[in-house]
Amino acid sequence: MPEFLTLLPPDDAREKLLSHLSVPLVDSVSIEVSSSLGRVTAEDIYSPQPLPEFQRTTVDGYAVRSRDTFGATDSLPAYLNLIGEVPMGDSPSFEIDAGQCALIHTGGMLPGGADAVVMLEYTQVARRGDLSRSTLEGHGRTGAGADPVPTDEIEVFKAAADGENVIRVGEDVAQGQLILPRGSRMRPAEIGGLLGLGITYLRVVTKPIVGLISTGDEVVDPSQPTRPGQVRDINSYTLGALVEKAGGEAKRYGVFSDRLEVLREAAAKALVECDAVIITAGSSASTRDMTAEVIRTLGRPGVLVHGINTRPGKPTILGVCNGKAVIGLPGNPVSALVNGYLFVVPVIEKLLGALPRPQSTVQARLTVNLPSQAGREDWWPVKLQPSLIGRGQGEEYLAEPIFGKSNLIFTLVSADGLLRIHPDATGLSAGEMVDVVLIL
Amino acid sequence: MPEFLTLLPPDDAREKLLSHLSVPLVDSVSIEVSSSLGRVTAEDIYSPQPLPEFQRTTVDGYAVRSRDTFGATDSLPAYLNLIGEVPMGDSPSFEIDAGQCALIHTGGMLPGGADAVVMLEYTQVARRGDLSRSTLEGHGRTGAGADPVPTDEIEVFKAAADGENVIRVGEDVAQGQLILPRGSRMRPAEIGGLLGLGITYLRVVTKPIVGLISTGDEVVDPSQPTRPGQVRDINSYTLGALVEKAGGEAKRYGVFSDRLEVLREAAAKALVECDAVIITAGSSASTRDMTAEVIRTLGRPGVLVHGINTRPGKPTILGVCNGKAVIGLPGNPVSALVNGYLFVVPVIEKLLGALPRPQSTVQARLTVNLPSQAGREDWWPVKLQPSLIGRGQGEEYLAEPIFGKSNLIFTLVSADGLLRIHPDATGLSAGEMVDVVLIL
Repeated sequence: MPEFLTLLPPDDAREKLLSHLSVPLVDSVSIEVSSSLGRVTAEDIYSPQPLPEFQRTTVDGYAVRSRDTFGATDSLPAYLNLIGEVPMGDSPSFEIDAGQCALIHTGGMLPGGADAVVMLEYTQVARRGDLSRSTLEGHGRTGAGADPVPTDEIEVFKAAADGENVIRVGEDVAQGQLILPRGSRMRPAEIGGLLGLGITYLRVVTKPIVGLISTGDEVVDPSQPTRPGQVRDINSYTLGALVEKAGGEAKRYGVFSDRLEVLREAAAKALVECDAVIITAGSSASTRDMTAEVIRTLGRPGVLVHGINTRPGKPTILGVCNGKAVIGLPGNPVSALVNGYLFVVPVIEKLLGALPRPQSTVQARLTVNLPSQAGREDWWPVKLQPSLIGRGQGEEYLAEPIFGKSNLIFTLVSADGLLRIHPDATGLSAGEMVDVVLIL
Repeated sequence: MPEFLTLLPPDDAREKLLSHLSVPLVDSVSIEVSSSLGRVTAEDIYSPQPLPEFQRTTVDGYAVRSRDTFGATDSLPAYLNLIGEVPMGDSPSFEIDAGQCALIHTGGMLPGGADAVVMLEYTQVARRGDLSRSTLEGHGRTGAGADPVPTDEIEVFKAAADGENVIRVGEDVAQGQLILPRGSRMRPAEIGGLLGLGITYLRVVTKPIVGLISTGDEVVDPSQPTRPGQVRDINSYTLGALVEKAGGEAKRYGVFSDRLEVLREAAAKALVECDAVIITAGSSASTRDMTAEVIRTLGRPGVLVHGINTRPGKPTILGVCNGKAVIGLPGNPVSALVNGYLFVVPVIEKLLGALPRPQSTVQARLTVNLPSQAGREDWWPVKLQPSLIGRGQGEEYLAEPIFGKSNLIFTLVSADGLLRIHPDATGLSAGEMVDVVLIL
């Protein structure tokens, strides 16, 4: 077929597509950090303050001047005067002088003069006041007005080094430090990090809008009844969900008939309204050619890649019109979705300016031999089965390829992931360990 | 410390917690399939029809009776009369009799009498009508009223087996077949599968509501200004995002002071209003004990696990009160979040009735030796760096542990995942391949 004269490997095809995209196309918006899960930061964020803002202890114990404890052992303890208790959530009203210490609780602020904390376990209250080691834990929060308590003496059985059990000012983050580069995905940790610094709003990249066009005289929307010979539009919805998952916003234009002018008009409208356009072609060769023809006339440079050396997905068309990606995917649902993972998701990530992140994979042992054609990259849907024949370190997964004609959507429903057979390989052998890319 | 007399391994602790939960606690709701991404199905779903509903071809070619092609070769082709073209989206108005064939496009409905399709590549139009091989692709969608076209004869150069290039009725899914068991996560493929069957609504499990309570006299909401000695509440937000990510709904109750009665009252309210409750304790031993005391008095059986043999997260408390999980997490943000992944996510998945699925991991080569204490399970935040020192099959990742005091939230911000050191191990060696659980 003339359309497949030059089949590019998928990686090269993807690179060619991405290199032609104008970036940034999309805008940014300020939102609450607490509602930013999954969004991508639109600018570098620097810390407005050090974190922590004050010296804090990481343990329950006594704030001391470390030099006062040097040489302390079980048999030769250091003796320190207990001058008070550090109140939680406030700065202590006293300083530690030579030979003094103060009771302090995890997270409490070190008093002036103190540079270390001795853990409770390495201390004992000498019998001079009301306090004893066993009751110390009990009065943690009650002594707000009670310090100093000058009647106790504390035995310290272990020397503390300068800074021991202490988090210094700015030890987590220094003031002015770059904490989130542009393109960071907001996960729970990023949300916590910003809020810990008092940053409650941030600018995120606007979700790129991806227009979805289905074609095919035999295709009807799933909400409509079908006549014999008709099938329901799956692609607008699987790809819509994929776009949403990747951080974009899907705009479904519906199903169009297999006429060049109709498709051209729909695509032109979508190209104006969206940041990228996906056309899932009718499945026959003639309609695939129609998609290419539309992309050619929609804008420059037009079709970049026509045909990719992969299975499924050989008829995939990658184009760029006026700086926006326009992708023609095969009509069959499995090809469309698998190639959505391969080409649509990277486009969305590029539009978002999202920093690269590792792919979710699972190492698994292949259960059967899988043949493959050298030079072609194959993607097999596989089911992962936990197995106890482990490597001593718990269980491992078995990867069972799901066989079936490639247009059966339920082969993907039962799959946990996709197994890639590299173009250089001529197949994979049963028993081999393989990386399965999870489809989440 | 008395609270840590019996430290359970994390897996045992989790199992103990989950086994005490009453399930199902949560309700179900009917929603549109097209908006169901990430939700969990609340009931088994069976196919209302076979898919496909009619015999379809997977290629462009001629629908034939396979026996008419038996023995056909390049040198001895079979000759068949072309009686028409199958219209897309409709049932053909004719049947295939002995010696006949019909032009058919990928996805088209097989005419009665036909049982196979010969690909266009293995045919040629004999010179008897207006059509020629090169123009066949061009008239695909125009011939609605034009069949039959009795003037052509087709040469077939290859025998077709019964069923060749045909998807049979119900080959993807049979009528009445279980297509999605209760507990399935809706991914793009599941959405497509249901819509392909005309199922536009489904029942999903209501999102479990997880109540979040922070305590600590030193803790203030991130929207508030801080005084010296005060820190901002990170845990309500990191855990809230984690709950949301896992498919639950977070209900933040705010920050409460370290007084038993105050905490008890807040927890009792949350226990009534939510499906699970998480208390992130103030960080000192006394407030940790307070959390345990509250859980003990909140309902039966109360505290199940007090102290877990893991780092970070030793002080974690797992309880069940009146069938609902009540979890006490350490106050420091890293412990709270890591133990959220270990214990809160599984609780949400159990409440959702979600079927188990493989964890997202990345195999990586450890860059340094990591010591660990036998019997304790360690979770290290690690950064994954792509490296070209691959196994011939592309690049591999290097896993660089992030060192730092465990209460520094930005150690998790810079981490791609968590590396588990098994309790049986006494450490991991530089150069070892390890599984890194991605934190997404």
